[in-house]
Amino acid sequence: MIGGGRNAFIGSIHRIAIQMDGLAEIVAGALSANPENALASGKDLFLPEDRIYTDFRTMIKKESASPSEIRPDIICIVTPNHMHFEPAMLALQNGFHVAIDKPITFSTEEAIRLKEVLESSGKQLLLTHVYTGYPMIKQAREMIQSGVLGRIRKVFVEYPQGWLSAPLEQENNKQASWRTDPTKSGKAGAMGDIGTHAFNLAEYVSGLSVYKICADVNTIVPGRLLDDDGAVLLRFEGGASGVLMATQVATGEENNLRIRVYGEKGGLEWQQADCNSLRVMWPDKPAEIFRTGAGYSGAMAVHNSRTPAGHPEGYLEAFANLYRNFFHTIAASDKQESEKYLDFPGIEEGIRGMKFVDKVIESGVSEQKWLTF
Amino acid sequence: MIGGGRNAFIGSIHRIAIQMDGLAEIVAGALSANPENALASGKDLFLPEDRIYTDFRTMIKKESASPSEIRPDIICIVTPNHMHFEPAMLALQNGFHVAIDKPITFSTEEAIRLKEVLESSGKQLLLTHVYTGYPMIKQAREMIQSGVLGRIRKVFVEYPQGWLSAPLEQENNKQASWRTDPTKSGKAGAMGDIGTHAFNLAEYVSGLSVYKICADVNTIVPGRLLDDDGAVLLRFEGGASGVLMATQVATGEENNLRIRVYGEKGGLEWQQADCNSLRVMWPDKPAEIFRTGAGYSGAMAVHNSRTPAGHPEGYLEAFANLYRNFFHTIAASDKQESEKYLDFPGIEEGIRGMKFVDKVIESGVSEQKWLTF
Amino acid sequence: MIGGGRNAFIGSIHRIAIQMDGLAEIVAGALSANPENALASGKDLFLPEDRIYTDFRTMIKKESASPSEIRPDIICIVTPNHMHFEPAMLALQNGFHVAIDKPITFSTEEAIRLKEVLESSGKQLLLTHVYTGYPMIKQAREMIQSGVLGRIRKVFVEYPQGWLSAPLEQENNKQASWRTDPTKSGKAGAMGDIGTHAFNLAEYVSGLSVYKICADVNTIVPGRLLDDDGAVLLRFEGGASGVLMATQVATGEENNLRIRVYGEKGGLEWQQADCNSLRVMWPDKPAEIFRTGAGYSGAMAVHNSRTPAGHPEGYLEAFANLYRNFFHTIAASDKQESEKYLDFPGIEEGIRGMKFVDKVIESGVSEQKWLTF
Amino acid sequence: MIGGGRNAFIGSIHRIAIQMDGLAEIVAGALSANPENALASGKDLFLPEDRIYTDFRTMIKKESASPSEIRPDIICIVTPNHMHFEPAMLALQNGFHVAIDKPITFSTEEAIRLKEVLESSGKQLLLTHVYTGYPMIKQAREMIQSGVLGRIRKVFVEYPQGWLSAPLEQENNKQASWRTDPTKSGKAGAMGDIGTHAFNLAEYVSGLSVYKICADVNTIVPGRLLDDDGAVLLRFEGGASGVLMATQVATGEENNLRIRVYGEKGGLEWQQADCNSLRVMWPDKPAEIFRTGAGYSGAMAVHNSRTPAGHPEGYLEAFANLYRNFFHTIAASDKQESEKYLDFPGIEEGIRGMKFVDKVIESGVSEQKWLTF
Repeated sequence: MIGGGRNAFIGSIHRIAIQMDGLAEIVAGALSANPENALASGKDLFLPEDRIYTDFRTMIKKESASPSEIRPDIICIVTPNHMHFEPAMLALQNGFHVAIDKPITFSTEEAIRLKEVLESSGKQLLLTHVYTGYPMIKQAREMIQSGVLGRIRKVFVEYPQGWLSAPLEQENNKQASWRTDPTKSGKAGAMGDIGTHAFNLAEYVSGLSVYKICADVNTIVPGRLLDDDGAVLLRFEGGASGVLMATQVATGEENNLRIRVYGEKGGLEWQQADCNSLRVMWPDKPAEIFRTGAGYSGAMAVHNSRTPAGHPEGYLEAFANLYRNFFHTIAASDKQESEKYLDFPGIEEGIRGMKFVDKVIESGVSEQKWLTF
Repeated sequence: MIGGGRNAFIGSIHRIAIQMDGLAEIVAGALSANPENALASGKDLFLPEDRIYTDFRTMIKKESASPSEIRPDIICIVTPNHMHFEPAMLALQNGFHVAIDKPITFSTEEAIRLKEVLESSGKQLLLTHVYTGYPMIKQAREMIQSGVLGRIRKVFVEYPQGWLSAPLEQENNKQASWRTDPTKSGKAGAMGDIGTHAFNLAEYVSGLSVYKICADVNTIVPGRLLDDDGAVLLRFEGGASGVLMATQVATGEENNLRIRVYGEKGGLEWQQADCNSLRVMWPDKPAEIFRTGAGYSGAMAVHNSRTPAGHPEGYLEAFANLYRNFFHTIAASDKQESEKYLDFPGIEEGIRGMKFVDKVIESGVSEQKWLTF
Repeated sequence: MIGGGRNAFIGSIHRIAIQMDGLAEIVAGALSANPENALASGKDLFLPEDRIYTDFRTMIKKESASPSEIRPDIICIVTPNHMHFEPAMLALQNGFHVAIDKPITFSTEEAIRLKEVLESSGKQLLLTHVYTGYPMIKQAREMIQSGVLGRIRKVFVEYPQGWLSAPLEQENNKQASWRTDPTKSGKAGAMGDIGTHAFNLAEYVSGLSVYKICADVNTIVPGRLLDDDGAVLLRFEGGASGVLMATQVATGEENNLRIRVYGEKGGLEWQQADCNSLRVMWPDKPAEIFRTGAGYSGAMAVHNSRTPAGHPEGYLEAFANLYRNFFHTIAASDKQESEKYLDFPGIEEGIRGMKFVDKVIESGVSEQKWLTF
Repeated sequence: MIGGGRNAFIGSIHRIAIQMDGLAEIVAGALSANPENALASGKDLFLPEDRIYTDFRTMIKKESASPSEIRPDIICIVTPNHMHFEPAMLALQNGFHVAIDKPITFSTEEAIRLKEVLESSGKQLLLTHVYTGYPMIKQAREMIQSGVLGRIRKVFVEYPQGWLSAPLEQENNKQASWRTDPTKSGKAGAMGDIGTHAFNLAEYVSGLSVYKICADVNTIVPGRLLDDDGAVLLRFEGGASGVLMATQVATGEENNLRIRVYGEKGGLEWQQADCNSLRVMWPDKPAEIFRTGAGYSGAMAVHNSRTPAGHPEGYLEAFANLYRNFFHTIAASDKQESEKYLDFPGIEEGIRGMKFVDKVIESGVSEQKWLTF
């Protein structure tokens, strides 16, 4: 694992997700560039001292040369955005699979270069767009693919957060600081941090690709260096349209991701705050509430849950679903299951996300209404 | 009452709203141009035969000349949009107050001419933007006006319906037919029918005026003559921004009006499906659920409810609140209450709505991103 | 109308319910025994002075003798419990139909005597167990009657309120005072005031009769003269069992009536706080959400609603449904509709309620576990 | 781990809970008495073949003698109820800590004997009453302990499931078979399986002890050998009263545990279906929604969550909280935290649960109303 030392947020999430199913364990770490923090953080994880590093280059080199029975299979990268590309390249070049937090890289160019190296490496890459791991999101995707809702007409996705409604980056908040810093986060703030999640979810659930957008991108908190709010009109290939909203200044909101998709024959709605329910609506009969773990669910939902209906699963299980599918794919041990159920986001989703950021920022300052994607 | 014969939708709603509080009764009607229907509809309402008309001009003329103890005070117009202006003008010119369903007229020009006549008449005009009549909408407005949420930054309003996802106007559905007919509905379909409600609600709750928009307006069902779907990026005076969505092809949705407003210090959310609750969110303490009829509510909410908390009030009560405030204002009988609590939508809201329709339709076909309102 | 002067609670509810549909109007009133209040209250209702009374006996006598074209059809009694029997008897004996708030009388004996007089009178009697008037309660009853849930096994009904968690009767609260006064309310407090509602709802929805109970009845607030809390184990004819809970000391609760019924094949749940939804559950497919006003509803629900789905109806509409069915039954004007859809609670439900009160109070102090009903 | 082979339910839940935080790993297993299943199940967990056993006695003996650096610290027992006592005794006698699924033993006598051995052993015992591990349950307990709700008056707890509404035990369903078999489950069915959970939750949240009960216990599905349904009137020390409902024949229900507690000053409600919210109600101000992970939460809730507010945590995290507190207590490594935050259910809760089962079954067939606990 690279990054994820004490006080990091997403690193500990990855570790829980990795460990939950007993399919993998963390054996080495360059958890921090600060030697003291690296050591303490490694010890927290019960790592042997000789596998605690302060530099990811050293770690990759040394671990790469370790005997096959202890050599790690996967390098997991949970650093801020500007530190994704180099370790990912190095890991692939040294024969490791790669798991990486989103966005995939700092720039689209990096993402494209990474794709080239990945393809020639024969390795797997996991990009943790966690929200696609929810069982009821799988159910939604599978139902739409089956055609039961008819041709899709409308997609509404929204991701309101409130935590950046105050200028936390001026108050020494570590998470706020790097996320609002263009040298670490990239050209986008909210649109990169959560807008890409919403965008990925919209494309994943609907099965459609956005090709034109018109964006209103705002920096609302005075003094902030990147956008903290945006709304985007969407046009999808095949004729559907929609709206994406992502904001970090919706004061009082937690992490209220929500998606609604409407087709000719029916519609559906899912929101993270009630993540184990999927409301499916019909014009001429009562709405149905599909539930995680229920016996009537589709195969994708069943594959991505762990408990019977009524035992709430959550964010960590969704995260673990990504890793579980990734591990199973690597192990090729799950041959009895159709590959379809092992899907996880990867390099293509990463490149789509980077292009979304490019285009949304461009549209935000453009006088032209629609920009082609 | 003009319009509202058997099989009409909104006419019977108006009647319930008028009668509920025992403050007014219906004494005459030109309920239909069809003599048979007019008669039958009038008898349904226990009207004497000599006060049942087939022509509103005759009715206004005759009733205007009736003795003061039985002369009606108010003419209520619940016809399709193209039949609003003429009866409204005639009613004002003959000394009646006017209640009129939205949108106020067929065109902005008519609305402006109506305003001139209204102002010189000294009469009152009620425009039934019903959603502003909900107690928790009053609570929201009052809280925002009090400054408790801080300066407003974001306004999201959405109004998804599904009933026009099939081409009902080709299947002899009366409501669908006139609402999708440009000669009866005006230049807009969904954006006029429900988009104006959403727009009115956004301005009413936030207390802010929209001045720039960028709209995506669509006709999704093949063969339809007017828009049935739209999304609008909004900019408000004072710096807030937002999104308005209104669609009638969200298959399976009922009438799912929802508004969220976020300020520097807090946010709030209301939706018609849970109309007696108002969720107020804070960055550093638990969200609070304000409820219709509760003792802790503000004065506007209290004035606009009829039962203690826990006895659900609904759409008809919201509608009746508009009429009750209108009646009290006319009667000037409610002197002990601040006028503030008697507010109801009128000519200004009507003109704003017409301008919204003009601008949104213009923006829908424009290549320019932002149009000034 | 007898009772219901200024500051009364339930009287104004009855008036709204009576007026809403334009099927009846209030023409005379003995609204208060206090002459000043009676007059002021009558004027609030636009009653002519000569039809404003301070004594119900005088009113019944005089109105009974009035010419048939102005003679009222119905006497509506909204006084405290101890003042139900005498006016009801007098009204029936003078040829009026009677509408009466629950519980029907002060004692079971009175209720039985009233039944005898009612039967010989040929008149109709409405007892306003309002909760049976909700469209989704009608839907629940109709579905259970149809057998779609299979044989009923369990019935849970609960009615938590919080308003009496403080000793309001010691603070001059009028509603609290008479409801906790055995000379006005009868032998039960909470069990009579709201327990009877819960009991009535359980029997109405399930279509089953309770025949054995075991009750825990409590007076929780010190100094109170009647029970303010109770829980009852229920046994129904035919083998079903259940629980009834009713309390007025559930601090913070509003009026949170809820019922759940489970059969061999499915279950359903309704609660007043979300009164336009009925959740129907199945063992092997997603739960369905039935909604007021939806086209797929059963005939009883359709008959008892006024607006299309998505326009919330509430407590006042439920109340008005009782009156509407009562009026239509009296008028026999609704011949095209099956009588089935015109049902309303009457004398039998009244007697059941009185017996419930008797038995529950008896059980509360009994050492014997089960008492036969 | 003893029990929990392939196709077992609760075993895999325990493993996820154990592994989630990286604080422990499973090193040996007697997962099944069937050699083939034991081997396959052990290999699923990557156990070395020499630490896969078919007999727990052999395992405890051999592992007990293994070198201290690989010797396990804890024996985890996830077998059916009749197989709890012997392995627990053996584990304690051989110097292991014990984690055990509920109910603690097959009979109260066993539980009392286990307590004696436990106390003399100096070891720790975890009983997985999982529902006490939810962050919002911790918040509820902490708020009640703080006195903010005033003296507690009412406790309502309910646990409806529907999965046993059909006679699954006659259809070869493994879970149904042992749970309805008196030789494996003990003297109670539903009242032991889920009634004890509800009972434990009621005592945990309220901080009060039940001392008198009156129970209605039913076997509803024909041919079933144990109860599948029950309702219990409760009296608590100190004067509070309440109702416990637990049923496995509420057709269509999943796992709908819910608790409500009302005190003199306020009330609260939690349900597993919305496990990250705690509704706290007040008589004179809006209800507040406390949320898992929020900064304003109390220390116990904060200690028992892993992600910021808005990232749903669920059943598996609640389960893992029990283990995490158990591990930290054993390791005594968490010295900076008050012990208060490390609480987990143990032998006392186990004995209370066994006594509840005894008393509830006794009351179910008694003619006497109240039985003292």
